[in-house]
Amino acid sequence: MSMSQPESQSGSVSGEVFSMEVRVYYEDTDVGGVVYYANYLKYMERARTEFLRTLGYDQGALMAQDRRQFVVKSAFIDFVSPARFDDVLSVTAEVTKLRRASLHFTQQCRLASATKSNNSGGDLLASAEVVIACLDADSLKPCAVPGSLKMVLSH
Amino acid sequence: MSMSQPESQSGSVSGEVFSMEVRVYYEDTDVGGVVYYANYLKYMERARTEFLRTLGYDQGALMAQDRRQFVVKSAFIDFVSPARFDDVLSVTAEVTKLRRASLHFTQQCRLASATKSNNSGGDLLASAEVVIACLDADSLKPCAVPGSLKMVLSH
Amino acid sequence: MSMSQPESQSGSVSGEVFSMEVRVYYEDTDVGGVVYYANYLKYMERARTEFLRTLGYDQGALMAQDRRQFVVKSAFIDFVSPARFDDVLSVTAEVTKLRRASLHFTQQCRLASATKSNNSGGDLLASAEVVIACLDADSLKPCAVPGSLKMVLSH
Amino acid sequence: MSMSQPESQSGSVSGEVFSMEVRVYYEDTDVGGVVYYANYLKYMERARTEFLRTLGYDQGALMAQDRRQFVVKSAFIDFVSPARFDDVLSVTAEVTKLRRASLHFTQQCRLASATKSNNSGGDLLASAEVVIACLDADSLKPCAVPGSLKMVLSH
Repeated sequence: MSMSQPESQSGSVSGEVFSMEVRVYYEDTDVGGVVYYANYLKYMERARTEFLRTLGYDQGALMAQDRRQFVVKSAFIDFVSPARFDDVLSVTAEVTKLRRASLHFTQQCRLASATKSNNSGGDLLASAEVVIACLDADSLKPCAVPGSLKMVLSH
Repeated sequence: MSMSQPESQSGSVSGEVFSMEVRVYYEDTDVGGVVYYANYLKYMERARTEFLRTLGYDQGALMAQDRRQFVVKSAFIDFVSPARFDDVLSVTAEVTKLRRASLHFTQQCRLASATKSNNSGGDLLASAEVVIACLDADSLKPCAVPGSLKMVLSH
Repeated sequence: MSMSQPESQSGSVSGEVFSMEVRVYYEDTDVGGVVYYANYLKYMERARTEFLRTLGYDQGALMAQDRRQFVVKSAFIDFVSPARFDDVLSVTAEVTKLRRASLHFTQQCRLASATKSNNSGGDLLASAEVVIACLDADSLKPCAVPGSLKMVLSH
Repeated sequence: MSMSQPESQSGSVSGEVFSMEVRVYYEDTDVGGVVYYANYLKYMERARTEFLRTLGYDQGALMAQDRRQFVVKSAFIDFVSPARFDDVLSVTAEVTKLRRASLHFTQQCRLASATKSNNSGGDLLASAEVVIACLDADSLKPCAVPGSLKMVLSH
């Protein structure tokens, strides 16, 4: 049997845009033969999580040390074209607005490679604007985004 | 052991607003102790499905007989207040725009009864605008909403 | 528009067997056109939760007051026949062994009514043996099932 | 911002045991603070899918060309220790029995690296025996596992 290196899921940052690859598994699909619409929000959250990790922000530590918690305040999502079983998607995350107590993300899911469809890759599948609020983990009231994160993001 | 009637999940229509109750189970929650954000989209789809069923539109039959399929084209969702394990939510569905090839739904999740929190019920948890496109099930191209459904909805 | 009563999801107890109805929604299906296999475990957990609620055991209260937590220790599940979109399932829960620190459940998913298939109802879809351990919520070590629950279950 | 290579999720084969890494995201957790029990079955299916892909068996192609479909017939799963948000798991898949019309998998989830817990890695979290049946995709009746796959697996 052939040998390959185990790789944990990671991602890349090009300019200010973070991108990671996500494989579509059976669990993600529905009877329509495509990815169930709510699952794009899962993919997009994975990308935000990995983006923050790339910047050195582990959300667990943020919670434990800084008593700060990120929650989704609103999401606008446009479903452009369906992803299918076995497709590999490229999911991006970019902070497009930085407010005192919130981060505005612009995110896209594109086809990285298609197994079953004839698409040539790069096709836009879904795009979203997601507003993340920073809460005090004790009071659950809005509070300022940690200064060190703001500094990293504003470069 | 006490006896109670088995009841399948249904819903009610008041004016033009359909409403059904949804219980929050373990599967719906996340480590933050609340309902995972993407799961509100599941609840809202259940309400749209039951609303259409109330009107006599079983989506399976619609697919098999009319070769029409409804897909979500876009969703804007506002997360107002978190739902918790064991809460009962009231999820509404109302058609607020009726276009040639799409239906615009306005939907809300409210607290019907709270088990763990002190809320008194009726609190708004999430609201959404969801655009549903009608597709030809063979070509997957947009096509007119079935006339009989339009007729029922425009009353 | 016709009016019907809103009903929250509940269930019935016949003999010692609890049963509740579950509707299959889009979220539950996969590209194979049937319910995704892991989702039967969600249905079965809903039935266990409602069964305990019927007995007066709200898991939230159990956690808050008694500092007891139920976790799944093992599950053996047999997938007999697939459920489909829009089917209504009857999901049962029965305690078949009562140990000092665990409950053994026997559970089944049967077709209550079929929308798309020709089945006549009652067909077995999945059956499972699920072992639930009772943990001390603070130490997360096994501890005795609350005596009052044992008393109710042993009748 | 630092740059890293985008990597799609893959895995390795050591002896006959395939292994891939899976990150725990918010979507996977529940209010108990750990991975929701049914989600281990999702992780295990991802590993089976990637294992088959490593052997050159894309399930989409298997369906389209050979009209064969793999379905889960039974699963026995033992939940040993909980995984938490941000943990990286190592999920294995090994074919331990090869029957005419079924494959028996032995699978494990181990902690590859822990973010929040003190565990030192390698700890067993869950183990399972999963029986996969090969069906004729048209009749949905059991049929022989493709000979070429048997040949690869029996080495």
